[in-house]
Amino acid sequence: MKEIYLDFAATTFVRPEVKEAMEPYFTREFGNPGSMHSSGLHAKQALDYAREKVAKTINSRIDEVYFTGSGTESINLAVKGVARACKRAGKGNHIITSRIEHHAVMDSCKDLEKNEGFRITYLPVDKFGLINLEELEKAIAPETILITLMYANNEIGTIQQIAEIAKIAKKHNVLFHTDACQAGYELSVNVQELGVDLMTLNGSKIYGPKGVGMLFVKKGTPIVPIIHGGGQEGGLRSGTENIAGIVGFAKALEICQNAREKEAKRLTKLRDYFIKELFKRIPDIMLNGHPVQRLPNNVNVSILSIEGEAVLLKLNEFGIYASSGSACTSHDLEPSHVVLATGVPFEVAHGSLRFTFGITTNKKQLEFVLKALPPIVKELRNLSPVKLTLKDIEREIEKQKALAASVKVG
Amino acid sequence: MKEIYLDFAATTFVRPEVKEAMEPYFTREFGNPGSMHSSGLHAKQALDYAREKVAKTINSRIDEVYFTGSGTESINLAVKGVARACKRAGKGNHIITSRIEHHAVMDSCKDLEKNEGFRITYLPVDKFGLINLEELEKAIAPETILITLMYANNEIGTIQQIAEIAKIAKKHNVLFHTDACQAGYELSVNVQELGVDLMTLNGSKIYGPKGVGMLFVKKGTPIVPIIHGGGQEGGLRSGTENIAGIVGFAKALEICQNAREKEAKRLTKLRDYFIKELFKRIPDIMLNGHPVQRLPNNVNVSILSIEGEAVLLKLNEFGIYASSGSACTSHDLEPSHVVLATGVPFEVAHGSLRFTFGITTNKKQLEFVLKALPPIVKELRNLSPVKLTLKDIEREIEKQKALAASVKVG
Repeated sequence: MKEIYLDFAATTFVRPEVKEAMEPYFTREFGNPGSMHSSGLHAKQALDYAREKVAKTINSRIDEVYFTGSGTESINLAVKGVARACKRAGKGNHIITSRIEHHAVMDSCKDLEKNEGFRITYLPVDKFGLINLEELEKAIAPETILITLMYANNEIGTIQQIAEIAKIAKKHNVLFHTDACQAGYELSVNVQELGVDLMTLNGSKIYGPKGVGMLFVKKGTPIVPIIHGGGQEGGLRSGTENIAGIVGFAKALEICQNAREKEAKRLTKLRDYFIKELFKRIPDIMLNGHPVQRLPNNVNVSILSIEGEAVLLKLNEFGIYASSGSACTSHDLEPSHVVLATGVPFEVAHGSLRFTFGITTNKKQLEFVLKALPPIVKELRNLSPVKLTLKDIEREIEKQKALAASVKVG
Repeated sequence: MKEIYLDFAATTFVRPEVKEAMEPYFTREFGNPGSMHSSGLHAKQALDYAREKVAKTINSRIDEVYFTGSGTESINLAVKGVARACKRAGKGNHIITSRIEHHAVMDSCKDLEKNEGFRITYLPVDKFGLINLEELEKAIAPETILITLMYANNEIGTIQQIAEIAKIAKKHNVLFHTDACQAGYELSVNVQELGVDLMTLNGSKIYGPKGVGMLFVKKGTPIVPIIHGGGQEGGLRSGTENIAGIVGFAKALEICQNAREKEAKRLTKLRDYFIKELFKRIPDIMLNGHPVQRLPNNVNVSILSIEGEAVLLKLNEFGIYASSGSACTSHDLEPSHVVLATGVPFEVAHGSLRFTFGITTNKKQLEFVLKALPPIVKELRNLSPVKLTLKDIEREIEKQKALAASVKVG
């Protein structure tokens, strides 16, 4: 049975060219860049070259690129590192984020809130998953030090207006970090154009190795380390450098960014075709996220009256690999906090299904899925005690809106 | 020119068998263990299997093994994670460590001291680099929550009495973490025999990949994460798991531990021969560290009247790769804090030179070094304005001791 991997937002394979670039650094060029001999020097050169390549790709200074052990670590460093630096400098303790962030952002914020005296604003999103820029600006207080909002959502694919948000942040003299983990493959990560102060990327979502992340930190940004030690990465992230991984990351990012416009075009076409056909072939489904302002490789639909997990297991029998939410939380069976944040009811969020495309995705694979899925849905719906229609959902959403409006004070 | 790599304490290459074990997880079995399909399941199985293998190797429970991004991260997690958990539970704020720890321990402690209200005791060591167990016990106060002491020193190779220290810690109901990064290749890391509560290991020192560390945390130990997010590693260390790296780490540790007794015997012989010959061929040198209680692969000598860095550069011309201290700090030219802590004067510490052996090290290589080094020393001594002898140093050490004794109060 052929496998159809449609879970590229969960993780990607390592591209052959990336693997090849990493190859020398396992057994041959294995030195510690901190060592004062030729073996160390070669490692140091490889590290410098990778950093240069990344800086060129994201259009930053070389000394603004910091390598870490994962996207999650980069995010923790950005959020906690800036928060602690600002607090120690007496600059305030308020952070603005949203309700649809990755757990790395959310749980870093929650930890700062619970244990270090920070105040966090979790901005709501509209039904497409978009932040309201006026609400964002209103949330800024004199003690606000950091805004952290994701570039493109890992679950519903909604792309935020990063450059606009950056302008608002700058206007109010607030630092802005964006989690760009899902954006590296298809969107521009040019930090000058985006105007961000900090940006997170990681290898495992851009056909690079797992276990490598990157944090862009604009020169002059107040930030302290979360991991102390030998002083690597300009003192901001200690630990013997993972040269093979870093070289692979740099190569992967370069390839993705060079190919991104062409690839985005190709995937957008596939995405829109797939969505259109899904709606044609399966009644009572809803698209989660924005119809246009969304990642070219992301399709997220809620199939009413059935559970996403059940569909996934059936698809798996056909060799089709999809997801019901982010991989990071898919083992707990709670519905996605992201889909819920867009205002869809609990039972609809439970039926969400995510297909994320990548290098190997083609129309033939999608045709196969489009054939396999409708009978699965039909079978599961026959077994389901719940019989929901789109009309029920719309009514439910209206009811919730009215309820929400009625309890608003002042 | 053939290379003679004698810097295995800085980092090791990845063993071919380890590389081979990692191979499938880059391009073929690349799934995210959090995903609910076969690709994710295969990744999850590889992760589970690696964890089982490590648990078996260190004689722990499976759920006591946590994978991280480096030895440095494991140490930060152990020290800060336990410190914060204990403080939040109102258990005290005192940590005991030593003056010869790796920067990951020292700087984590300093950060806790400076920014989080902890009190740290930095125990001195004797001239061999050994902790005095009575002094350790005396340092324990009612508010002591953690002892963190390294198993074997990365610079001078001195091996502490870990099992004895563990007994003292247990007697006083204090948690004990050991940084065992340098011990994984030649010493037992059986946590039951050692009696530790937490233990750090990493891949880059045991012929495994860089960018992977491990922390053993005894069931029931109070500890909170330093990196928050998707809840991987039992919630203690979030971030998409680096499967290739973890599989490689597990394999590397298993091979090292299976071969360690034989390898320790072989290296001890080489080490003792090399030390004996160095003393025979070069006048006015001192051995740093303990003559017997030292890592089988570690030789650290101070060559009087010259600087370690100058010797290193000359050796490098012969293709001989050694170190003047730990690789992590070798780019700053401060003398080693470890060598200084053993009581040797500043100028002697500056002349320290470390050779650390490994799999590929053999007598022929050492003979080559023993031939190359004496003329280098002679040449550099001829150029040096300093003319120190062992007698001068002994007198200096006595003077300092007397001075130290005279300022002791009550």
